[in-house]
Amino acid sequence: MADEENNVSEGATVYVPDLLYTGRRFESGLALVCGPAGDVLAVECAEGAGGRVVRLRGRALLPGMVNAHSHAFQRVIRGRTEFRSGERDSFWTWREAMYAAASALSPEDLYDASRMAFTEMALAGITAVGEFHYLHRTPEGDEYTDPNLLARCVVRAARDVGVRVALLRVAYARAGFRRPPDERQKRFIEPDPARFIANTEALLKDFADEGEHPRAWVGVAPHSVRAVPLEYLKEVCAFAGSRRLPVHMHVAEQPAENAACLEETGRTPVRLLADEGLLGPRFTAVHAVHVTPEEVQALAAARSIVCACPTTERNLGDGVVPADRLLAAGVPVALGTDSHTQVDLLEDARELEYHLRLTRLERNVLAPVADDEGSPVSALAARLFDCATRSGASSIGFRGGELEPGRPADFFTVDLNDPSVAGADSEDLLPAVVFSLSRAAVREVAVGGRLVVEDGRHAAQGETIERFKALRRKLRGA
Amino acid sequence: MADEENNVSEGATVYVPDLLYTGRRFESGLALVCGPAGDVLAVECAEGAGGRVVRLRGRALLPGMVNAHSHAFQRVIRGRTEFRSGERDSFWTWREAMYAAASALSPEDLYDASRMAFTEMALAGITAVGEFHYLHRTPEGDEYTDPNLLARCVVRAARDVGVRVALLRVAYARAGFRRPPDERQKRFIEPDPARFIANTEALLKDFADEGEHPRAWVGVAPHSVRAVPLEYLKEVCAFAGSRRLPVHMHVAEQPAENAACLEETGRTPVRLLADEGLLGPRFTAVHAVHVTPEEVQALAAARSIVCACPTTERNLGDGVVPADRLLAAGVPVALGTDSHTQVDLLEDARELEYHLRLTRLERNVLAPVADDEGSPVSALAARLFDCATRSGASSIGFRGGELEPGRPADFFTVDLNDPSVAGADSEDLLPAVVFSLSRAAVREVAVGGRLVVEDGRHAAQGETIERFKALRRKLRGA
Repeated sequence: MADEENNVSEGATVYVPDLLYTGRRFESGLALVCGPAGDVLAVECAEGAGGRVVRLRGRALLPGMVNAHSHAFQRVIRGRTEFRSGERDSFWTWREAMYAAASALSPEDLYDASRMAFTEMALAGITAVGEFHYLHRTPEGDEYTDPNLLARCVVRAARDVGVRVALLRVAYARAGFRRPPDERQKRFIEPDPARFIANTEALLKDFADEGEHPRAWVGVAPHSVRAVPLEYLKEVCAFAGSRRLPVHMHVAEQPAENAACLEETGRTPVRLLADEGLLGPRFTAVHAVHVTPEEVQALAAARSIVCACPTTERNLGDGVVPADRLLAAGVPVALGTDSHTQVDLLEDARELEYHLRLTRLERNVLAPVADDEGSPVSALAARLFDCATRSGASSIGFRGGELEPGRPADFFTVDLNDPSVAGADSEDLLPAVVFSLSRAAVREVAVGGRLVVEDGRHAAQGETIERFKALRRKLRGA
Repeated sequence: MADEENNVSEGATVYVPDLLYTGRRFESGLALVCGPAGDVLAVECAEGAGGRVVRLRGRALLPGMVNAHSHAFQRVIRGRTEFRSGERDSFWTWREAMYAAASALSPEDLYDASRMAFTEMALAGITAVGEFHYLHRTPEGDEYTDPNLLARCVVRAARDVGVRVALLRVAYARAGFRRPPDERQKRFIEPDPARFIANTEALLKDFADEGEHPRAWVGVAPHSVRAVPLEYLKEVCAFAGSRRLPVHMHVAEQPAENAACLEETGRTPVRLLADEGLLGPRFTAVHAVHVTPEEVQALAAARSIVCACPTTERNLGDGVVPADRLLAAGVPVALGTDSHTQVDLLEDARELEYHLRLTRLERNVLAPVADDEGSPVSALAARLFDCATRSGASSIGFRGGELEPGRPADFFTVDLNDPSVAGADSEDLLPAVVFSLSRAAVREVAVGGRLVVEDGRHAAQGETIERFKALRRKLRGA
């Protein structure tokens, strides 16, 4: 037994924080033991845990957060769309600015923008991201010699930052039902499912040797019922099913989308997907703001996931995700930073609850019914933190989101002396983190047991920012 | 002339940032020249400005923010109320937890809690605060030998941190119309206006020698129409008018409050105040969530101010402040962090707009009609930043909120390389700050020309936090 313990600790790194989040509560006196392969070997008593010991004094340690919905390149329009461009501004006028940016980026620009976004995520405690990637072609609409050139730029950016990435490769066929082609969408289009599948197959080969805890992998993302006609959609979903890939799709973000779907198919988006058998446990409906009670039941029956993106949904005027009805029906809710107007997944977590408080004029709307596990003081916060971790991991097909033996050793730490949480005890620390934490309090971030952020800084942060600033200057000159 | 210039620069400190916010835009090449008395001497060309030069490399400099509504002691319940305590949780159940904390604090505890809250404000770029102070008596409900003992603890905390404070001394007479006295409110009560006025007069004497740019001053705050009967209210307002003091009052935060006022007086709160002639340019209605269009007009006609507290209003389930109707009618909107569930006045600023986007499903709701000043890209952000600065200053009776000669030299800086704003140029920096800034980007904060926060830290931060942690431990044991 002693030998086995020695073997276990061979090459292990032992992180010893003041408090460690074990899934429902913070506990003191525990260590996180990480193996050389980057997985969790044990969560055990700090006394006597073998290996290289890293003391994290004054810190609480939590599982890394999972950002289930990102469009990394949209970081370039931050601050450029918060003004009125017409009589009545909406998602649709915002989209024009976003399309202009999408048209202007070279492959290396995309790398620089993505690296900036992923660095900001790492600094906020995010260790894995689902990148909903729809830039495939040249600005002129031609295929690059390598049709996955841009996808590979995004994956390279994530690898260089050190965060895990699910490259959710987008299928995009058209501007919409009975709508003429839109010039601004020509970088997105793969006109038929055979082309989409062949290109996705080629990308899949990149990640054949990733091992048990991959740093990058592939999912598919039929963009929306607007952009992908039903027959195309069915082929993409059949392909994903055969490869057991996660499927993400924008669903019911804007009322106009639902109306167009109704006009084309006689059914609302979720109804259509359910009828056609396209939902399932690997399906994530991104947004799902405008869904009927019947559609919520269909998502629940299929064991599908919803990804809410409240900081973006409030920015775009999409509306409030009915997380109360979704969670009550048993639909897991993941979270995404989406357009990156803010990169703070805890702000998304609290808004999931807060936007319901604002519309219902009551408090603690999503608080679970009392159970015997954990403290009631932290039960709501634990549920919201699960959205930012476990549900996100399920959504993007990742085994992380919690710190248990055999899972990836991805975590972040919180400075217990940061003014945003100072004074919290083990019982109310999680509510303080979920409802009040400032990004300034995130100090260390590890992926696969290795620190990518130390004392609030990423090693390559300076260069990343300089390159991003040069990109912004170039885009302004364009 | 040369001599005069030398005189001007005698003892001056010249802050030279990369960019300086001059009210509608950021400009480069400018310096902020601060006099020995703590006021702004000039905003002028950085080349040749005389005095001790402090280069703020990689920084943008903005006027310090004004937090117009704070209950500093409520910092002690952060993280303790985010769970369901009954079938349906609301403002009213939250209030029970807040009352329990209010009952438990000694004078020194109140100092420690206040110092913690004011330190967090300083670190967030807030340089002046309106403290709506209603703790007057001992836990048993007796007057302290000094009836302003607790008010003085709060003012001392603000002075020690270095932020300016308007001590808005609260008048509180009763639990409500036809409601029996509430044990938990006995620390708040001053049963008659004569007592309230005498005690406020005594406090006013503390600040007789504050000079042109006071660090602390007094206003009055009849708590609400619920807590102050009309005759009492009229005497308080007459007193405030004779002394030209700011008057703050909680107005229309919760529907139940409006209903009770209607029952007692036959009028809604704002209607009542307008009819009785109690509104005016020194009057601030805090919250004003549930107001009719007619009430908005009454506030506008009286040139009164509204103080919105969106981070608290979303936490308490109060509802959405109709900032669209208020601003359209010409009512200035100030901002407050109120219960301190978060201390981030820029988050409050963006929520003023965002909560309207969520309910109206459109964008840029508060964007002003185009004018010739400034860039349209930053016009909405400038309007929201005005709420966090100029309108807050007007609300609490303070000459700050902008950086102009003769005004107090209160400012904060933003690290232009912080990932939350990196890549912004002078045109889109303000929208990036208002919509995306992380508190981590706030690096220097000055009050009266002297730095109270340097490189993101307050000099006394360590001791302040240790004392606050000890207070939290004591409250848990109590």
